[in-house]
Amino acid sequence: MTSRDQAHAPGRGGPSRRQLLFGGAVAGIGAVAAIGADALAQDDTPDAPTTEAEQALNGASTIDFYGIHQAGVETPPQAHATYLALDLRPEVDRDSLRRLMKVLTDDAARLTQGMEALADSEPELARIPARLTVTFGFGPELVRRAATDAAAPPEWLRPLPEFTIDQLEDAWSGGDLLVHIGADDALTVAHAQRMLLKDSRSFTTVRWVQTGFRRAHGSEKSGTTMRNLFGQVDGTVNPAPTTTDFGDVVWIADGWLAGGTSLVLRRIRMDLDGWDRLDRSGREQSTGRFLAHGAPLTGTDEHDEPDFDATTAIGFPVIPEFSHLRRARSEDTSQRIFRRGYSYDGAPTGDDVSSSGLLFAAYQVDVDAQYVPLQRRLDELDLLNQWTTPIGSAVFAIPPGCSEGGYIGDTLLA
Amino acid sequence: MTSRDQAHAPGRGGPSRRQLLFGGAVAGIGAVAAIGADALAQDDTPDAPTTEAEQALNGASTIDFYGIHQAGVETPPQAHATYLALDLRPEVDRDSLRRLMKVLTDDAARLTQGMEALADSEPELARIPARLTVTFGFGPELVRRAATDAAAPPEWLRPLPEFTIDQLEDAWSGGDLLVHIGADDALTVAHAQRMLLKDSRSFTTVRWVQTGFRRAHGSEKSGTTMRNLFGQVDGTVNPAPTTTDFGDVVWIADGWLAGGTSLVLRRIRMDLDGWDRLDRSGREQSTGRFLAHGAPLTGTDEHDEPDFDATTAIGFPVIPEFSHLRRARSEDTSQRIFRRGYSYDGAPTGDDVSSSGLLFAAYQVDVDAQYVPLQRRLDELDLLNQWTTPIGSAVFAIPPGCSEGGYIGDTLLA
Repeated sequence: MTSRDQAHAPGRGGPSRRQLLFGGAVAGIGAVAAIGADALAQDDTPDAPTTEAEQALNGASTIDFYGIHQAGVETPPQAHATYLALDLRPEVDRDSLRRLMKVLTDDAARLTQGMEALADSEPELARIPARLTVTFGFGPELVRRAATDAAAPPEWLRPLPEFTIDQLEDAWSGGDLLVHIGADDALTVAHAQRMLLKDSRSFTTVRWVQTGFRRAHGSEKSGTTMRNLFGQVDGTVNPAPTTTDFGDVVWIADGWLAGGTSLVLRRIRMDLDGWDRLDRSGREQSTGRFLAHGAPLTGTDEHDEPDFDATTAIGFPVIPEFSHLRRARSEDTSQRIFRRGYSYDGAPTGDDVSSSGLLFAAYQVDVDAQYVPLQRRLDELDLLNQWTTPIGSAVFAIPPGCSEGGYIGDTLLA
Repeated sequence: MTSRDQAHAPGRGGPSRRQLLFGGAVAGIGAVAAIGADALAQDDTPDAPTTEAEQALNGASTIDFYGIHQAGVETPPQAHATYLALDLRPEVDRDSLRRLMKVLTDDAARLTQGMEALADSEPELARIPARLTVTFGFGPELVRRAATDAAAPPEWLRPLPEFTIDQLEDAWSGGDLLVHIGADDALTVAHAQRMLLKDSRSFTTVRWVQTGFRRAHGSEKSGTTMRNLFGQVDGTVNPAPTTTDFGDVVWIADGWLAGGTSLVLRRIRMDLDGWDRLDRSGREQSTGRFLAHGAPLTGTDEHDEPDFDATTAIGFPVIPEFSHLRRARSEDTSQRIFRRGYSYDGAPTGDDVSSSGLLFAAYQVDVDAQYVPLQRRLDELDLLNQWTTPIGSAVFAIPPGCSEGGYIGDTLLA
């Protein structure tokens, strides 16, 4: 975990609540700690249990906005995420884009630190950041309008090639500007969404909105690999932001995207009813992992290396040839991606029991070199394809972060 | 807070994590504490911060299922709620209803305690209850099919009278069986929803699904009055479950609904853009409360009694005649209701900036005697009506709770 991801909440290794409430300014504690103390003080009803009051409130935790990279990629995933894809109005040119990104950057910089946006219509809703991050992505059309000789669109910034399993719907695909909002609190996400949409409305229209969730903060130990709605431990083999090769997988090294990355966002419908008809062993064969703890079928711990050569007593591979684990794995380490997915659960209607799936978010330096070969392998043989269908797909360039005084996209638009 | 609402999480006044992990069975700690310990133990990666590991995990907290009243009414509101309205298939009669309610009761009793449902397709998803409650409500048609001479439908169990402000849509109105699922974790809600829908599908179809949210667990101090998407402190004047007259407001005293209550669920669209054009003072005049802390315009603290006689220097009432605070208040204490609302935030499309509002859930002994007169007063004059529009409405009888071996609805169906 890098320093940008550390929560600056009062009480977590910092001064006690008492110090914050009664001690005035405490060296080394910034604005957010003060916000936390305010929130604690405001509703100090006598019947509240002392233990809770003495605990740090996750609502006061913040993720730094400024930095080499945008937050929201290596940030430990928050409980809630909303991805907004906006389409540029026809008249929006390079100069307007610069104005738009300056305004949105200012909004994001404030809101993520628990401060109201300029002309915030509901400032009180801004004061619980709950690890809010706002991450911007540029679609092909935005970069086309903004590109110069010095800053050209990357080759991979285009729709993915068609895969045979795809049943893509326009309603979940494409988009010129991505605004990815994440926080541990749904109200925080809703307020940030509203402020950002208000400030972009004269430049853009809404193309699609996708919302997703993971386990709540405090539901389980942080760092636990998520389970998707199939109940699978999902994302075990994922480069950790703490490892040295994370940068090689994710961060672009040069050009206007230096410090940035690429995002492939796929909306994958999961056929829970079909999955239901599969017994536990069938499910484990299709994934190549035990459902109980996510270990490979040749192991006992989630993070055990799979033994692809192991065979059963009658000579079949223990990890089937068609299993997701085997198909997703490549000998070629340059084809790795970084995943940061969310479940979605739409409203079923009529006879349906679910309208559910996964927002599969993959970050990598180069979509063509990393994501596409992986997806090709899965497209060909992955047994999981029987119960999963990509119904949305979008590719965005995620510009680098910016420093105070700069704005997201300034390496392209300045 | 009653005993049913207490969290039985390890570490919160209970044994330490170490005791649970290494001490074997500990007297007085039930199944859920053990679940908590399992969840902690499962992913005991070395780099996790000690402070967090030593804290209680909210995911392990449970709300008792069995009791005089159904949980989910006086239960302190969880972060997430889903209301499912199901319509009975034509052939479902009194005997089928009994079978249905037995199955759903069994599911709810297990899931709320962090245990998998019978034939749970994803048992691992059941193990983080996060204060899950499942509350059932019966619509007019269900009670009509089930009623006997000894157990007749209450008079108020019918659609509300029409109000002039209503613009009701079928898509959000009515319903035969309500399943109200609440938890502090969205994945817990999704899993419970799936299991309950699977077990009801041969009896019912889905009429509508409404999802709402409040602040996350840990975002702010528990007991803080919620803010809605207008930024208003919303629900200050609400009988607290701890007070002696709560029962008079909420719990029905006799008949097959003894220990039960009634629920009016209104979907209220909030015109955030219109609200936006109002300045802060205009907003405070329309509600009669300060936005900053929710105090009446004649007070300084959220819970101050409003002074309706106070006038400004030029003789106008400080709390305007048309303000929501004044219109919602009645001299007649028998007209009180208990509110337990949630915000909703749908996906805006095109030029929209929001598709947002409030799921207004009102519980009372008698809809006609308590809810309707209140709503009439608001319908006539409430200034807030300019920015709020009821677009959905449903009335349900909430049967009492049941004891182990019984089932929800047994006072009607047995």
